[in-house]
Amino acid sequence: MSETLGFIGLGNMGVPIAANLLRAAFGLCVYNRTASKAAPLTAKGATLTASPADVAQPGGIVLTMLADDRAVEEVCLPGGSFVEHLSPGGIHISLSTISPVTARRLAEHHAKYKVDYIASPVFGRPDAAAAAKLWICNSGPAAAKKRVQAILTAIGQGIFDFGEDAGAANVVKLCGNFLVAASIETLAEMLTLAEKSGVSKKAVAEMIGKLSPLHSGYANQIAEQKFEPAGFRLALGLKDVNLIMRTAAASMTPMPLGSLLHDRYVSAVAKGRANLDWSAIALGVAEDAGLALRKAAG
Amino acid sequence: MSETLGFIGLGNMGVPIAANLLRAAFGLCVYNRTASKAAPLTAKGATLTASPADVAQPGGIVLTMLADDRAVEEVCLPGGSFVEHLSPGGIHISLSTISPVTARRLAEHHAKYKVDYIASPVFGRPDAAAAAKLWICNSGPAAAKKRVQAILTAIGQGIFDFGEDAGAANVVKLCGNFLVAASIETLAEMLTLAEKSGVSKKAVAEMIGKLSPLHSGYANQIAEQKFEPAGFRLALGLKDVNLIMRTAAASMTPMPLGSLLHDRYVSAVAKGRANLDWSAIALGVAEDAGLALRKAAG
Amino acid sequence: MSETLGFIGLGNMGVPIAANLLRAAFGLCVYNRTASKAAPLTAKGATLTASPADVAQPGGIVLTMLADDRAVEEVCLPGGSFVEHLSPGGIHISLSTISPVTARRLAEHHAKYKVDYIASPVFGRPDAAAAAKLWICNSGPAAAKKRVQAILTAIGQGIFDFGEDAGAANVVKLCGNFLVAASIETLAEMLTLAEKSGVSKKAVAEMIGKLSPLHSGYANQIAEQKFEPAGFRLALGLKDVNLIMRTAAASMTPMPLGSLLHDRYVSAVAKGRANLDWSAIALGVAEDAGLALRKAAG
Amino acid sequence: MSETLGFIGLGNMGVPIAANLLRAAFGLCVYNRTASKAAPLTAKGATLTASPADVAQPGGIVLTMLADDRAVEEVCLPGGSFVEHLSPGGIHISLSTISPVTARRLAEHHAKYKVDYIASPVFGRPDAAAAAKLWICNSGPAAAKKRVQAILTAIGQGIFDFGEDAGAANVVKLCGNFLVAASIETLAEMLTLAEKSGVSKKAVAEMIGKLSPLHSGYANQIAEQKFEPAGFRLALGLKDVNLIMRTAAASMTPMPLGSLLHDRYVSAVAKGRANLDWSAIALGVAEDAGLALRKAAG
Repeated sequence: MSETLGFIGLGNMGVPIAANLLRAAFGLCVYNRTASKAAPLTAKGATLTASPADVAQPGGIVLTMLADDRAVEEVCLPGGSFVEHLSPGGIHISLSTISPVTARRLAEHHAKYKVDYIASPVFGRPDAAAAAKLWICNSGPAAAKKRVQAILTAIGQGIFDFGEDAGAANVVKLCGNFLVAASIETLAEMLTLAEKSGVSKKAVAEMIGKLSPLHSGYANQIAEQKFEPAGFRLALGLKDVNLIMRTAAASMTPMPLGSLLHDRYVSAVAKGRANLDWSAIALGVAEDAGLALRKAAG
Repeated sequence: MSETLGFIGLGNMGVPIAANLLRAAFGLCVYNRTASKAAPLTAKGATLTASPADVAQPGGIVLTMLADDRAVEEVCLPGGSFVEHLSPGGIHISLSTISPVTARRLAEHHAKYKVDYIASPVFGRPDAAAAAKLWICNSGPAAAKKRVQAILTAIGQGIFDFGEDAGAANVVKLCGNFLVAASIETLAEMLTLAEKSGVSKKAVAEMIGKLSPLHSGYANQIAEQKFEPAGFRLALGLKDVNLIMRTAAASMTPMPLGSLLHDRYVSAVAKGRANLDWSAIALGVAEDAGLALRKAAG
Repeated sequence: MSETLGFIGLGNMGVPIAANLLRAAFGLCVYNRTASKAAPLTAKGATLTASPADVAQPGGIVLTMLADDRAVEEVCLPGGSFVEHLSPGGIHISLSTISPVTARRLAEHHAKYKVDYIASPVFGRPDAAAAAKLWICNSGPAAAKKRVQAILTAIGQGIFDFGEDAGAANVVKLCGNFLVAASIETLAEMLTLAEKSGVSKKAVAEMIGKLSPLHSGYANQIAEQKFEPAGFRLALGLKDVNLIMRTAAASMTPMPLGSLLHDRYVSAVAKGRANLDWSAIALGVAEDAGLALRKAAG
Repeated sequence: MSETLGFIGLGNMGVPIAANLLRAAFGLCVYNRTASKAAPLTAKGATLTASPADVAQPGGIVLTMLADDRAVEEVCLPGGSFVEHLSPGGIHISLSTISPVTARRLAEHHAKYKVDYIASPVFGRPDAAAAAKLWICNSGPAAAKKRVQAILTAIGQGIFDFGEDAGAANVVKLCGNFLVAASIETLAEMLTLAEKSGVSKKAVAEMIGKLSPLHSGYANQIAEQKFEPAGFRLALGLKDVNLIMRTAAASMTPMPLGSLLHDRYVSAVAKGRANLDWSAIALGVAEDAGLALRKAAG
């Protein structure tokens, strides 16, 4: 068996990622606030610990897959955290989509304990995580990145490297999410135009699916107004758009399309759609055009 | 040899399309305002006619590949046009990107002469045309579409059918162009965000290229600020955005992202960029963020 | 009695304006498609004619107050129109809000008959017209403007001069309408913000009314969601926004706030609000924020 | 002599406001970080204190006029602050434009010491402050508001009451600033349209000045591209727009015009215009239209 790793955060993404690490013959010490989520992993040989700090050992490696900036900070910053347990010579691989500013602050914090911070946010939904088909954006100290390569290879299909700045990988991850959110708005406007011009939305969605794989799934969802169950909750979409806008503000970058997306997500939440899929901003596009909505969707 | 077809409009797209028809063993009578453009085709057996009307024979088929609504109308509407020569039982296949309104008006006009109008606007640049790899949006009378199938198969890699409404295929073509223009704006904003956040634009563009083929070429052009020579002139981009907005207005469809694109293209032309590639709206995004531009680009 | 003038177009604005000319001791020959509208004027001494051409005499002056570009063109351009009857040395004062392009075309047309075209679009609703309190934007040949000064003084409280270009006064009039439409959007967003933040819309509207007379009426209408009866129909608001956007397009001027207004008006018409007051775009602002609307308003 | 008041914050606004309180026969204990700013006030009888806490006495009244949320919090929240010195029965009148959220938090904080918080942000620039012509938005406990009425009357020309919620007056103040910022964008777009259509910007600005006092000053500044010296710095404009957008986000209110303003201000700062007047966003509007700018303005 290879090295034993720590893993904190066993949600929809964390569980399948951790399972792939076990499959690749890594040992695993896992922690989750709701301990029961660990069952499928302990069944395959993982050890469940009583506190997040216990997953780490001096000079070792810990991965975290947590919901947002605050969750990552809560588990990293308090005295006696897993970061101190990693000291000296350990590595923290942070898989979450968080703000570049937070990432840089964490890297500075970790450095005091001689622990390296690697930002490794991932593209892909739970099914891609299960299939070890994630795409990984990566930034951090070169030596540390080299050391963790086998780990990332076990969970993804490709790694994109963005240098040593701890914030860089998260900037790129937010760019990617922006691309997807913008594609949703684009599809919503064009399918609404088709419908109002008397052309079948579904036929257009089918064509788009053939011409651009990135747009395929969303084109169909929007054409069919099928927004439940949520693959990615709209409330989380707003959270990500907010991260994008805050990152833009930090560097004085005007993003008018970002602003348009922001207003759409705010409106969708105001209309009670926080728990639909984040492509449900398309409902607002249809409403603005005076179209009646499918019953189930509202 | 199969049937002899008429072909009007021998520009960057028309010539390679016509060449593929010859290659597929169709006979061709061609016309172009600048007759010298026909040379590569007559060399392969096409007949050059003295007037556009002469390419047609009663009950035959004529394809047109012309610059815009006006050019198509000028060749179709006057008395004694090729449409009358096709009468009765002929077919006009219109490959140009024009307004759905114009397409419907032409179909009505042709009907008076018992000529069918098939709208067949195409996706793809000259290199795709040369490789017979165009994607074709198709709408018009079912029997006529069946009769021309071998022709369209000879020039494209796939046909998408949108029913009998003459305007439908053009609505869909405009939807597709909207998708591309929106992708340009999206890439421009995200690459500007990356640059202002200290992340390599080129590295991000490379990643995008792997994740989404549709975005690949534009991502690189924008990252390198390389907008000459123009694959598709910015002035034509504005023309298409105007067609989209006019089609949206006709059906009372608000398209805020369409409006944003409209303002970008208007601004780019106002700044003297009409002859750059239509992805050069990215220069405006960079300027708004206070970035200096590459010399060659401005 | 002073000179006898011709007057064409007896709608909500035309009648009170014509009445003020009679009050100022001008003679009047009037024409209206629906002749019965002339009754209040003939009762005060005006002569009703059977055709629009008959209101004019060689070297005289004719005012028109018509609905839109087309209506003005229909009465001016055909052979035998009042313009020919004014020839030579007559003056046409056009009070309508039309496109600058149309105004310039009319000036050229009139010049062939040695008739001067003065563009004199007005600010003010019917009550201001009745009180002779219109504000008048003016452009055209200097000598002609001097000759008609007493006429314009009789119907307005102030004249703003914009030189000799026939299109200039209409550009300015459209600028003014843009200012008002933009104020409506501004008030709608701020009052919605107030309401969603738990602050009384009516109290805010009252304050605005004291600080800025221009905003007073609209602030109250929006705070009370009272959009009927329409002071200015929303469908006409869309017409004017379209004129603005077309004028902007003609000079390659991006107007993102203009685009935002355009999308709002399109959406409001798509939602069936064409006959409400043009400030009813505020309903869309409230809906986007998830607010329930007053019954009567929807 | 009436009661002696405390006053903290002697900037461009604070000094003339404090002078008016002296003129109205109030006693004044003043504090400012840069003590020299107090000279014109001590010359007229004010007492300068060594620390902000010293301006207060139990049961008394203190006014603050500070730059932003942080400045107000720094002077209020630490142990031993003037708020504790006011306890019990004192009143804090906060004149600054701050976030409603901060205002509510301060009111809660003060309540622990039995001190009332009155939010009294003001409309008006230094010249209006000097002339005691400020307009005051007011919210807070009714009894406290009654007790301070003579004070507010001494510095303003009118008080608008928005109830007891400490945040309300600041919501309204932000609404007012939004109205002004939106008017700047509106004027910039319309004057650019005029210029590009060949119409004199100055003539249009002059007309606007007569029709709407609120727009008069800005219309002239924009027509003349005269943005120095700054009446209100553009960087502060961005700060206020950010407060507006954050307040909108807190209540899930989409404000597309707010977003447009946000992007304009971010762009202007990115272009190095932070120290020009906040109406200098008009330069961006002109640049987008391809207009050359006046030398001095860039």
